[in-house]
Amino acid sequence: MTECYDDIILVLSKWKDFRELKKDGDLKNFANWILLHENKLVANQSEQEDFIVAQVDNMDEKEKIPDLANRAVMGHLIARMNLFVKNYAKQPFQEIDLSSLEEFRLLQMIDRVKNINKSELSNESLMDFSTVVDILKRFINKGLIIQVKDENDKRASQLQITQKGKNLLLTSYKILAQIKPNIAGDLTQKEQETLINLLLKLNNFHTHFYEEHYVNKKKKS
Amino acid sequence: MTECYDDIILVLSKWKDFRELKKDGDLKNFANWILLHENKLVANQSEQEDFIVAQVDNMDEKEKIPDLANRAVMGHLIARMNLFVKNYAKQPFQEIDLSSLEEFRLLQMIDRVKNINKSELSNESLMDFSTVVDILKRFINKGLIIQVKDENDKRASQLQITQKGKNLLLTSYKILAQIKPNIAGDLTQKEQETLINLLLKLNNFHTHFYEEHYVNKKKKS
Repeated sequence: MTECYDDIILVLSKWKDFRELKKDGDLKNFANWILLHENKLVANQSEQEDFIVAQVDNMDEKEKIPDLANRAVMGHLIARMNLFVKNYAKQPFQEIDLSSLEEFRLLQMIDRVKNINKSELSNESLMDFSTVVDILKRFINKGLIIQVKDENDKRASQLQITQKGKNLLLTSYKILAQIKPNIAGDLTQKEQETLINLLLKLNNFHTHFYEEHYVNKKKKS
Repeated sequence: MTECYDDIILVLSKWKDFRELKKDGDLKNFANWILLHENKLVANQSEQEDFIVAQVDNMDEKEKIPDLANRAVMGHLIARMNLFVKNYAKQPFQEIDLSSLEEFRLLQMIDRVKNINKSELSNESLMDFSTVVDILKRFINKGLIIQVKDENDKRASQLQITQKGKNLLLTSYKILAQIKPNIAGDLTQKEQETLINLLLKLNNFHTHFYEEHYVNKKKKS
């Protein structure tokens, strides 16, 4: 039912790209430009990405979802980037007794959002409730956070970071700053900004979707 | 001149989101939904990123590393994007008995790189050797892959995907294509291409670094 909107948006986006390049282009120029352009949609640079694009090429779904190859390559590249950072951070974090970037992110959220509770933390961090609870137990045992009763709801408890937790965060920031190589690689300042803006746009879209379909759904059920 | 297309695309995307939620919503409902929605969105969309930038601002290291805030926000956004995809894929993958995107990625690599061995697979996937070995055991038990002796090195063994494994991959591709929402969110075609090209550039940089400092180091030690 809503698929037609995807198509309309796709056509308009294409038309916009085209008119940016050729101010007075007509429909025939547009058609030719599409055909020329579609072939080099994704700049293939490596075997892994080539393989993904080839798999999509074999799928019937690509007729209905014209940007399917883009989506697949994007997911693949984001997963890889995340794994690079994970690998780079692993050893430095072990040295300060943090087992992962996820632990760091949770501790940072408890510092940022005063009196957050466990389920809010699970929503905010996009992590499973059970995983969050496991990590919080370790934090409490290490004295990095404390749990206090919620004044308004005696059954609930709120999380607060301790001075020891704050100190560990400050050390983590220093460690993250020193991590080699630079996560931004050889991107220029301008490329970094472009990348961040595109990721922010994506983040807004997905944060909204997640709240609507995951957080609110959980609340209702 | 082309700004009007951005606006049209924005309006249509919003309308699409709205009609997905409220099939018979009218213009007035639409207007109310936008107002409600925009307030919520702006309120929390940049809190996490603002906090990160504020932490970096307090650090002495920022004098020496002028793009430190960029790096921190980039790492944060990539981690979030990865978690969104993980959440979206979780349930559909459980239905076909794949426990994670990592499992899918490994199976795809065994399909792509004929006769790959375990340590090559660990390098190629950027994953810990022990994690890879655990997943491979499950694959063998499920009949998705087989291990065969390497003709040239009797101590080593090579991995091969079975027909059952190939079928599961095809099902996975279909499932990934159907995942809602579109991982590329509301990015235009041109923005998608820009993002992919920047991620490809980053991926090249980090793949090279990883091979130099992680894979080769392992080989020497």
